[in-house]
Amino acid sequence: MIKIIKGNIVFTPTPDKFTVLPHGHILVSDGKVKGVYQELPREYRNLAITDYGDRLIIPGMNDLHCHASQFKHVGMAMDKELIPWLENYTFPEEAKFQDTKYAEKIYQNFIKEIWKQGTTRIVVFATVHKESTMRLLDMFINSGLGAYVGKVNMDNNCPDYIRENSADSLKDTEDIIIKYQNKSPLVKPIITPRFAPSCSEWLLAELGKLGQKFGIPVQSHLSENKNEVKWVQKLFPDADYYGDVYRQYDLFGATPTLMAHCSLSSEEEMKLMKENNVLAVHCPTSNLNVGSGLMPIRRFMDRGIKLGLGSDLSGGHLPSLMKVMVYAIQTSKIFWANSEKQMDFLTNSEAFFIATKGGGSFFGKVGSFEAGYDFDALIIDDEELNYLDYTLEERLERFIYLGDDRHILHRYVSGNLIKKPDF
Amino acid sequence: MIKIIKGNIVFTPTPDKFTVLPHGHILVSDGKVKGVYQELPREYRNLAITDYGDRLIIPGMNDLHCHASQFKHVGMAMDKELIPWLENYTFPEEAKFQDTKYAEKIYQNFIKEIWKQGTTRIVVFATVHKESTMRLLDMFINSGLGAYVGKVNMDNNCPDYIRENSADSLKDTEDIIIKYQNKSPLVKPIITPRFAPSCSEWLLAELGKLGQKFGIPVQSHLSENKNEVKWVQKLFPDADYYGDVYRQYDLFGATPTLMAHCSLSSEEEMKLMKENNVLAVHCPTSNLNVGSGLMPIRRFMDRGIKLGLGSDLSGGHLPSLMKVMVYAIQTSKIFWANSEKQMDFLTNSEAFFIATKGGGSFFGKVGSFEAGYDFDALIIDDEELNYLDYTLEERLERFIYLGDDRHILHRYVSGNLIKKPDF
Repeated sequence: MIKIIKGNIVFTPTPDKFTVLPHGHILVSDGKVKGVYQELPREYRNLAITDYGDRLIIPGMNDLHCHASQFKHVGMAMDKELIPWLENYTFPEEAKFQDTKYAEKIYQNFIKEIWKQGTTRIVVFATVHKESTMRLLDMFINSGLGAYVGKVNMDNNCPDYIRENSADSLKDTEDIIIKYQNKSPLVKPIITPRFAPSCSEWLLAELGKLGQKFGIPVQSHLSENKNEVKWVQKLFPDADYYGDVYRQYDLFGATPTLMAHCSLSSEEEMKLMKENNVLAVHCPTSNLNVGSGLMPIRRFMDRGIKLGLGSDLSGGHLPSLMKVMVYAIQTSKIFWANSEKQMDFLTNSEAFFIATKGGGSFFGKVGSFEAGYDFDALIIDDEELNYLDYTLEERLERFIYLGDDRHILHRYVSGNLIKKPDF
Repeated sequence: MIKIIKGNIVFTPTPDKFTVLPHGHILVSDGKVKGVYQELPREYRNLAITDYGDRLIIPGMNDLHCHASQFKHVGMAMDKELIPWLENYTFPEEAKFQDTKYAEKIYQNFIKEIWKQGTTRIVVFATVHKESTMRLLDMFINSGLGAYVGKVNMDNNCPDYIRENSADSLKDTEDIIIKYQNKSPLVKPIITPRFAPSCSEWLLAELGKLGQKFGIPVQSHLSENKNEVKWVQKLFPDADYYGDVYRQYDLFGATPTLMAHCSLSSEEEMKLMKENNVLAVHCPTSNLNVGSGLMPIRRFMDRGIKLGLGSDLSGGHLPSLMKVMVYAIQTSKIFWANSEKQMDFLTNSEAFFIATKGGGSFFGKVGSFEAGYDFDALIIDDEELNYLDYTLEERLERFIYLGDDRHILHRYVSGNLIKKPDF
């Protein structure tokens, strides 16, 4: 049960710098890292080594926000505004997932794509449909990747053809939880009110109770754009701010919670996120594409709020977390420039930390090669990009900025080599 | 000498919309488009057809600003600030181009990369070195791609080890012009003061005279970031604004001129650009990476200023103009959001127009399939991305947002199929 993996190891136990072991060793036991060694300790020298030579070994990528059901629309309709985009593209598309055959086709392509791009764990929105959502859970289990899968709850403020009956919405969610809560160590259900306006207060309250009853985590959207924030204030006049709506219904940290976007979070909202250990998911590609607010990620870091990155397909167009990292750095530089360099931009190691150990924390001990962490890893063959004298850190940076799936040789999740899904 | 190319033709004679001919025909005669036809006219029906089936046929990409000599550093040192980046990376790297063998190695990789990414015409900065610059000109001639290549002029405000003697700078530039001005129809020299501060007033004046004497175009940088703009004001107190420095020395439209960045151009500067037909090159990836100002491209469009896109390697990290287009759209959405939707964002067809016909105008009749235009084209095999019912415009958009070199089947320049350079 012990494996030794050798290669150029790069990871980020802390955000401030990379830990680099040229031709180092990772000892993996029962799927978990037992230790990382420049020189292999004497007692392990008889064990077989998987030697990846000059290749890079980095933690797998954790995508904390993604709409699996919007995969058909990735990279298109980008010059439509949000409301026409939802009405003409997103909602009609999601309605098709009533048909489990259609859902299977899209979800197969989706899982193959995220596998290809080096995402080893992901948190996704499915649709309101119970059967299709269960197919997606089963497909993730078969894939070997790690996932939280959310059946979307939506009984309010949406077209009739996709609106749920409130009681059914709750019942379907509970059925899925009961069936899948303990089915797989890597693939689990997550409670997923689409966002505050799309659920009745009754449903929000019941979902909060359900989460606590079963100890199920929660995901939703928060403070993404101005009109949305104003609308929430109007719909929930008793709430002090947007996040306070979720808090009122025990959906804001009562169980592990992540909130996508948080671009316009107020000081109080950030304070509550910190207090309640709510993880903020930064989705910079989506924020740019949709033209909503940009998230001032440095403010969240300064306040010690947990952070992860999200591809937010199909508002975001790029399934690769490497590329989302680049956008996170770039958008942080807008704040840097606009603040006359007072608000520091993200360094490479900070962005990498957020994509790996930051986001990984939602899945347990995931996203690092420290002892006790699940061995989730990517083996990077960057020979094509590495034709001159680059350092290991420069090689990693060039892979992040310039590389693609062709440079990902292998993917590991919890110590298992994950093959391309054969759907 | 007549070729007929058939496939799904998409191009932009005007920015407002795509012209789409499903399974249409392009008649190419002597490297130029003679006409585009949905149904082939009777008189051509006996000619052989190159039928690309269900593939897309689009104009080639024109990259109007790029530092070929910085190719080693593409996608790295991205968390260094501008001055340390210049001092520790760019200038020491450029100094190596004194060695023509080193230059050849980098330029070979560079040309192969831009070929791969579908750039069919490009305007590049080389370095101050005459011999290396001539090698680059020769290599472009051999490649079959179109290029303007600039020997950089720099006799001021730079480290001694890369500073030119002023008279030599002028003499080397003139030598290159004489040797290459009429050597190739596709590859030409361009006058290239690095930017106003890097040239003495004597050299700027002489370069202006040289440009007019031989009718040679000009490229440089303009109004990229705040400190640079302030510095230029201090160095050239008699100039009304940055662009006025170039104007004083006949380097701002006396011959065809392009200026990279223009992020912070004032109203007067934009007015002079319009009057003098100076083309503004938008480099959004670079602007984000360097953390300099973002260019409000809509303002330039509203004023009828000519526009092109630039990869600006290695300030920009992406050699693909498709991806630069995406960033141009995304950064325009920041202005759209910040202006409460008063400043329209770039539509797909507008961005495509700028990357093709807009930038192409610097090379002559290039970047469209209208009659009389050089037949520069890319054949796009997007089957992998096109597994559902997408329209041709959606397919093009998905290729732009999600595609890469794997989806570019063929490249044509002036009617010739361009093979991968065999350096």
